[in-house]
Amino acid sequence: MSEIDSRLAALGLILPPPFTVPSGLRLPFDFVQVDGSRVFVSGHGPQGPDGLMAPPFGKLGEELTVEQGYQAARLVALSMLASLRRSLGDLDRIRRWHRVFGMVNSAPGFTQQPQVINGCSDLILEVFGPERGAHTRSAVGMAELPFHTPVEIEAELSIHP
Amino acid sequence: MSEIDSRLAALGLILPPPFTVPSGLRLPFDFVQVDGSRVFVSGHGPQGPDGLMAPPFGKLGEELTVEQGYQAARLVALSMLASLRRSLGDLDRIRRWHRVFGMVNSAPGFTQQPQVINGCSDLILEVFGPERGAHTRSAVGMAELPFHTPVEIEAELSIHP
Amino acid sequence: MSEIDSRLAALGLILPPPFTVPSGLRLPFDFVQVDGSRVFVSGHGPQGPDGLMAPPFGKLGEELTVEQGYQAARLVALSMLASLRRSLGDLDRIRRWHRVFGMVNSAPGFTQQPQVINGCSDLILEVFGPERGAHTRSAVGMAELPFHTPVEIEAELSIHP
Repeated sequence: MSEIDSRLAALGLILPPPFTVPSGLRLPFDFVQVDGSRVFVSGHGPQGPDGLMAPPFGKLGEELTVEQGYQAARLVALSMLASLRRSLGDLDRIRRWHRVFGMVNSAPGFTQQPQVINGCSDLILEVFGPERGAHTRSAVGMAELPFHTPVEIEAELSIHP
Repeated sequence: MSEIDSRLAALGLILPPPFTVPSGLRLPFDFVQVDGSRVFVSGHGPQGPDGLMAPPFGKLGEELTVEQGYQAARLVALSMLASLRRSLGDLDRIRRWHRVFGMVNSAPGFTQQPQVINGCSDLILEVFGPERGAHTRSAVGMAELPFHTPVEIEAELSIHP
Repeated sequence: MSEIDSRLAALGLILPPPFTVPSGLRLPFDFVQVDGSRVFVSGHGPQGPDGLMAPPFGKLGEELTVEQGYQAARLVALSMLASLRRSLGDLDRIRRWHRVFGMVNSAPGFTQQPQVINGCSDLILEVFGPERGAHTRSAVGMAELPFHTPVEIEAELSIHP
């Protein structure tokens, strides 16, 4: 078993299956693109074990608590890892995380975007450790997100050449 | 004629002239930056054949329909291609699209950002084909955009060395 | 004294100390990441000379004027330069700016995001000059930002190998 897969198992983390695109919706892009050593990750939402976008839905500062947002951001990280494993074959190929762009569906007056996106940063650091998992980040408030999802995150990282 | 220019002609697509910056506005940045094989594309809006920001203006979910947003996203793609051709000289130099960051001016409750940004993704794929045109993407809802434009898109791609 | 430090001194610009994270907040990410010649800069806000997030707070188009937003964007640029100097040791190592992603806390109807983010672009160009300082840019309207800050900016640049 690969090192990262062992780590995921030790942490009791299970990666979701491919995203089940709702009928009638077309997503003409790749969830991950590998180009040489560069890896681009599309905006991902929180996915459930059934492959669907995971509840709860809604805005932080309105329908959802910071803790619910934090958990949603963890699910986003797992969804990104699942896409990365499908594209890379083996998550051990990941050399370093670079950029995490965290977008939080924010009701007027909600400013705790960092506390929400910490759910993603913490999971990346737990799984990849403080060297490989270190990353730069923005955590900002969006007016709306597809599917009424509370969190969407885009990323960039590198694999070993 | 270059391959991509032939493809644009076959599709009946015409690239707009340089953006006419409204008087009194200063935009102290480059629409495209080429650095080695990397190409950065600034946020572009939908441009008309007169070089001005193209109508209709306003928010999706309020003033504009999804179909109008889709057409606006196509115009954004054409505006990006026009900037790229001015910077690169020849669009055939483009090796691969990497990242499309699609920002949709969204009224409260509007969540069909993917259907809007499909206008850009579809045009890139029509013009560059499924290999070179494949890209990662985010499609998210902004509170406001400059000029009341419905769509703004930023991108990154690579050229042949 | 390094060339860029001399330039900062000649312009009367002083870089702020490390950001004083408010008690109870955890920011588990790096403000700057250097990877080979690539440099990623996390989303920065306007910082005061005391290291704290700088007033005024609030939304453009509501509490704040465009001129206040412009000055805030200048402070963001100084905060990014301070983080870069701490990471790089010497700002002369910077070869070229690539991407500036400017996010403006925007009240409904506010569309002058470019005029606000010009505060950052202008400062970069004053300090680094028209060659090294040239960059691509987006300037867009966010629903909310952490700390009620009016401006947050993320960037990418390159250093000499």
